[in-house]
Amino acid sequence: MTWQVDVHVVPMADPADWSALDRLLDAGCLRAEEIVAVFGKTEGNGCVNDFTRAYASQTLAARLTGRGGVPAERLPVIVMSGGSEGVLSPHATIFARRAVAAAPSPEGALMVAAAHTAPLPPEQLGRVAQAEMVAATVERLIAEAAIAADRVALVQVKCPLLTAARVREARSRGADVATTETYDSMALSRAASALGVAVALGEVAPSRIDDAAIGREWSLFSSVASTSSGAELINHEICVLGTSREATGPLRVGRAVMAHPLDQGALGRALADAGAGSGGAADRLVQLFAKAEAPPDGLLLGARHTMLDDSDIQHSRMARAVVGAVLAAAAGRTRIYVSGGAEHQGPPGGGPFCIIARS
Amino acid sequence: MTWQVDVHVVPMADPADWSALDRLLDAGCLRAEEIVAVFGKTEGNGCVNDFTRAYASQTLAARLTGRGGVPAERLPVIVMSGGSEGVLSPHATIFARRAVAAAPSPEGALMVAAAHTAPLPPEQLGRVAQAEMVAATVERLIAEAAIAADRVALVQVKCPLLTAARVREARSRGADVATTETYDSMALSRAASALGVAVALGEVAPSRIDDAAIGREWSLFSSVASTSSGAELINHEICVLGTSREATGPLRVGRAVMAHPLDQGALGRALADAGAGSGGAADRLVQLFAKAEAPPDGLLLGARHTMLDDSDIQHSRMARAVVGAVLAAAAGRTRIYVSGGAEHQGPPGGGPFCIIARS
Amino acid sequence: MTWQVDVHVVPMADPADWSALDRLLDAGCLRAEEIVAVFGKTEGNGCVNDFTRAYASQTLAARLTGRGGVPAERLPVIVMSGGSEGVLSPHATIFARRAVAAAPSPEGALMVAAAHTAPLPPEQLGRVAQAEMVAATVERLIAEAAIAADRVALVQVKCPLLTAARVREARSRGADVATTETYDSMALSRAASALGVAVALGEVAPSRIDDAAIGREWSLFSSVASTSSGAELINHEICVLGTSREATGPLRVGRAVMAHPLDQGALGRALADAGAGSGGAADRLVQLFAKAEAPPDGLLLGARHTMLDDSDIQHSRMARAVVGAVLAAAAGRTRIYVSGGAEHQGPPGGGPFCIIARS
Amino acid sequence: MTWQVDVHVVPMADPADWSALDRLLDAGCLRAEEIVAVFGKTEGNGCVNDFTRAYASQTLAARLTGRGGVPAERLPVIVMSGGSEGVLSPHATIFARRAVAAAPSPEGALMVAAAHTAPLPPEQLGRVAQAEMVAATVERLIAEAAIAADRVALVQVKCPLLTAARVREARSRGADVATTETYDSMALSRAASALGVAVALGEVAPSRIDDAAIGREWSLFSSVASTSSGAELINHEICVLGTSREATGPLRVGRAVMAHPLDQGALGRALADAGAGSGGAADRLVQLFAKAEAPPDGLLLGARHTMLDDSDIQHSRMARAVVGAVLAAAAGRTRIYVSGGAEHQGPPGGGPFCIIARS
Repeated sequence: MTWQVDVHVVPMADPADWSALDRLLDAGCLRAEEIVAVFGKTEGNGCVNDFTRAYASQTLAARLTGRGGVPAERLPVIVMSGGSEGVLSPHATIFARRAVAAAPSPEGALMVAAAHTAPLPPEQLGRVAQAEMVAATVERLIAEAAIAADRVALVQVKCPLLTAARVREARSRGADVATTETYDSMALSRAASALGVAVALGEVAPSRIDDAAIGREWSLFSSVASTSSGAELINHEICVLGTSREATGPLRVGRAVMAHPLDQGALGRALADAGAGSGGAADRLVQLFAKAEAPPDGLLLGARHTMLDDSDIQHSRMARAVVGAVLAAAAGRTRIYVSGGAEHQGPPGGGPFCIIARS
Repeated sequence: MTWQVDVHVVPMADPADWSALDRLLDAGCLRAEEIVAVFGKTEGNGCVNDFTRAYASQTLAARLTGRGGVPAERLPVIVMSGGSEGVLSPHATIFARRAVAAAPSPEGALMVAAAHTAPLPPEQLGRVAQAEMVAATVERLIAEAAIAADRVALVQVKCPLLTAARVREARSRGADVATTETYDSMALSRAASALGVAVALGEVAPSRIDDAAIGREWSLFSSVASTSSGAELINHEICVLGTSREATGPLRVGRAVMAHPLDQGALGRALADAGAGSGGAADRLVQLFAKAEAPPDGLLLGARHTMLDDSDIQHSRMARAVVGAVLAAAAGRTRIYVSGGAEHQGPPGGGPFCIIARS
Repeated sequence: MTWQVDVHVVPMADPADWSALDRLLDAGCLRAEEIVAVFGKTEGNGCVNDFTRAYASQTLAARLTGRGGVPAERLPVIVMSGGSEGVLSPHATIFARRAVAAAPSPEGALMVAAAHTAPLPPEQLGRVAQAEMVAATVERLIAEAAIAADRVALVQVKCPLLTAARVREARSRGADVATTETYDSMALSRAASALGVAVALGEVAPSRIDDAAIGREWSLFSSVASTSSGAELINHEICVLGTSREATGPLRVGRAVMAHPLDQGALGRALADAGAGSGGAADRLVQLFAKAEAPPDGLLLGARHTMLDDSDIQHSRMARAVVGAVLAAAAGRTRIYVSGGAEHQGPPGGGPFCIIARS
Repeated sequence: MTWQVDVHVVPMADPADWSALDRLLDAGCLRAEEIVAVFGKTEGNGCVNDFTRAYASQTLAARLTGRGGVPAERLPVIVMSGGSEGVLSPHATIFARRAVAAAPSPEGALMVAAAHTAPLPPEQLGRVAQAEMVAATVERLIAEAAIAADRVALVQVKCPLLTAARVREARSRGADVATTETYDSMALSRAASALGVAVALGEVAPSRIDDAAIGREWSLFSSVASTSSGAELINHEICVLGTSREATGPLRVGRAVMAHPLDQGALGRALADAGAGSGGAADRLVQLFAKAEAPPDGLLLGARHTMLDDSDIQHSRMARAVVGAVLAAAAGRTRIYVSGGAEHQGPPGGGPFCIIARS
């Protein structure tokens, strides 16, 4: 069987606005049951009390099961990432996949595969058990999708966080949690998930990971993990993008690593990795995906930044504003996916970067 | 008489840290009495309750009058602009000017001139009287500095705002103020000051300006005004940069207009305007100055942005983060001057841009 | 016909949590079709980009039309007020009304009536046309409910606001809007709605109201209006509470005016107004409703407050935290309804206050 | 020798406004060299990047050494606590002490004593070494002031925090710090300081304290510690208030513990402890001091609060707004000292409370 993946980027006027998706479905450009994954950027704060993610997800799920006719148990993976700071424009990227009667492209083509894990007990959050849970699912997905480990371009993981209520629940059972600060739990969950990806892809040996390393030992990282935490889920939703030897179609995927938040050269490197050539690159770009974080040592290009010392604005919000602006200036568009909190995702202060382009 | 201007960019570890200035003075690189103006970026919120501006100013003034030996009545113009969001690194740009025994450069050279106005009564803030007060001082400064109106590269104005206390004071005299919202007063003060610059430079006819146009009629603007409001002053501090026919030295100044917050091409245009050539431009750059604002129609490159609808973060803060990141990526440095609130300063959503470079 | 009103206060674990309502319905304590109005406090910022209101409303409406079997055109008025700052605990107050075969209580009893208006064109927001639209509906509701104008205890109005998109829409038709600042539009909408209530109840003569008075002339106010703006609606939802001569049952309603945010004595005055006596008052309390605002002159009890000068936190958020804490301390409970922004609602710095108690 | 302490509460119009102090000095109500301690509330965010504390301190110190004629090495302890959220009004409380030719009051009277510690290495912050440093100084102060351990009413400690720069400095020496999150370091520093007070006063046995207990084992606490962290100092400033058997004068001091943020009864209990009687208590009140924190289990009076889950506003800011409003309503004044972050200061969710009243 050969697969072909189509990608649609649709604007959202608010977290409940899926009218652009409706138009695609009505026009026959897209069939609801072929949607494998949806990555959205919603306009909440991207932190603990960001309910725009759940609101968008609930509205989308109702749309797909209602007019879309998709059975509830076959809904796509829905990853809503909060935070459209600065120039980032709220939108969703829709991945649809269908079997086609054709040979695979000789050089391979874009493939997407998605799954969810079982619920994560609060006391496992931010610890080795969480990383192991993520790793097992990623390994299964890339095998099924016929993507070699070194051709994986992005592993998107939506992971849970600890709220005050979840901490109380764990403690009521006598269980100890990794942190009681809800905002900190978001970082720990992203960290453990990212190391799970790194293990699955052979980027980090399993023996290097213990509870103390998670969220601390920044020399351990994945170059393709993009993890994002949200209060609206208690398990993980995982989606893999990569070049599959069983896929065809016009879309290619490329990856690079942003060395720091101002690293605009990553766009050219990712286009080259996608084999997309350099002529007319901007026109051929379909979508960009990046992770952002404030350099954790408080320095950028040798000068002090203040993101980590600003108690009025969470530093993940500022990091998204910065990386979003830098990539939007390079690509000439603002409906791009930039997600905050890059713990163990790329080198400290930098992050994974991935593009989809037409060949 | 021929003038030469020197420019020093010094880091600040906090608003009271002037140790880098001390080192310049100690090393004899700079004489305190030659300092004409200091532009700083401090790490407050850049809004109403940002006391980092006043704290930095007070500390600098004490340093200059103390160890610097400068009489209080001859202190330089000190413009502290709050807000080092994103990658912007707190720093100060020091302009020193001295008479030299040399002929002026044939093509002119960087010149700086500065002055302050009388106190502005609260009821004049945001109205025509404020614009007129600014215009009169700008006209005087460019004449004295021998800068043609079309060779002015930047007019920096620090202007007052309304606090709850100032509103009460005005009302106690039976006077009516333009707004009672302190944050809004910052915008009105910047707006009136910018139109004052536009009138002084012939960019806008005086007859076009009335109270209703200030803060509303965005087709009226100056391409070189950079205005910034702060609670720590009750008058205006004004500083003009431009190419003077009576100046010499290695420094040149160039201007451009950013069409929108992502307009990185402005850097090349300003370098060209400075006559700085294109080879090795990054190395020759001394400093960048830009104004930032969120596009007031809520759109950028045809897509929605959310800066104006975010009630948790003032849009001027996000605009600084965006423009700061975009220019830092282009210039490869983060100690650059980006100031928020570009009302009547460049076209809507864009803003004036100025660079200083070695010839 | 005689009416009886039941009131249920239910906790919410998040904006989509209506499990406590489910339990009431399942236990037969409440019939879905008898619900006339629901007032909720959700945990967003209560400002422009607070989507918790719409998320909660959408979830509740789906619940009532789904398992509740309520036809969509007969849904209750749903007023979700954002902002549970400080000790305020997210919850909803459910008003159910049924006809009973009994004589009215001799002194009257709690009654509730609700309706919605037609959509409000953006250019009418904050202007006389909006006040007139609200006034007409309030007059109709109190007549139908047999509540004398002086026995009205609370008129809750949910009103729309201007987003950047709505401003663009109006301008595309050549229409002028009252403000382009979205946060300011929330205040103007609340202001016009409150003056509409004041006119309907004879508190302010219609001739006193013009566009210039709305949001400025604070001597004009209603002592029972509680208005709240949200991006999720484009019309008004209006609900009246009062003592009806055609109602019976154990519930009574009383009103008072908080003179300033620290006025705890309002609780005793409202209990007296309800005829609820003073013995065991805390136990007989069913619910409290209050409006909160930062004193607009920047002073409280003769000393300066900083709420209006804090650019990091909207003053409506702090006002809710203050009034919520003050009333929670007096009443010994935190699931109380405190809504921000009291423009023309009670005297400047104060606000309407209403309690429901068992007789 | 017998001591008498005078207390003055002065308003501040901004962090640099010490004009009310000037008037006291000019009028001869106060002698600069008799000032032992100044506790201020300034209007910053009270978190990492709050420079209002340092700005106020710098301005006050310059005033006292300048016109006050106080030698720099004999400056009083200056504790500026950031955060005037809600109704709290920026102000300072000035403690002056002088020897008098009189017998001590039979029941004792208010006494104040103050000192500072040596600088704290960043790697000791939040650990046992910090607690020990604080304990040693507190023990010395109460002995010198002739205050029995059980008559100590308040121990105010101003302690340092970790900034990104300090973390880098420690790491450059190979030292490990307790946390790299600057906001978290504020809590750890307050926690270790409070346990130091508890040890000094015999409230907690030294053997109970180890690094793991600091900031975690909330059953260990002091009922009189009030600790506050700030970026402007690298050592501790400590001030003890209590009833001394060697003091006289009209002022008495009383203490209580707030059980939770809404516990208004603490005011009556503290007045009783001061022996101030109940008649005319409000008139006899001179000042109130309280610590505030959001209940760490997310519950208050059995209902959920959202302070710990709000990523837009630090929970210490909301806790100050709540406790400030509750105490201001009880006391009828808003220039009161409420400081955030009550780790190991009173029971979880509650905090120490202290009043000064005229006998």
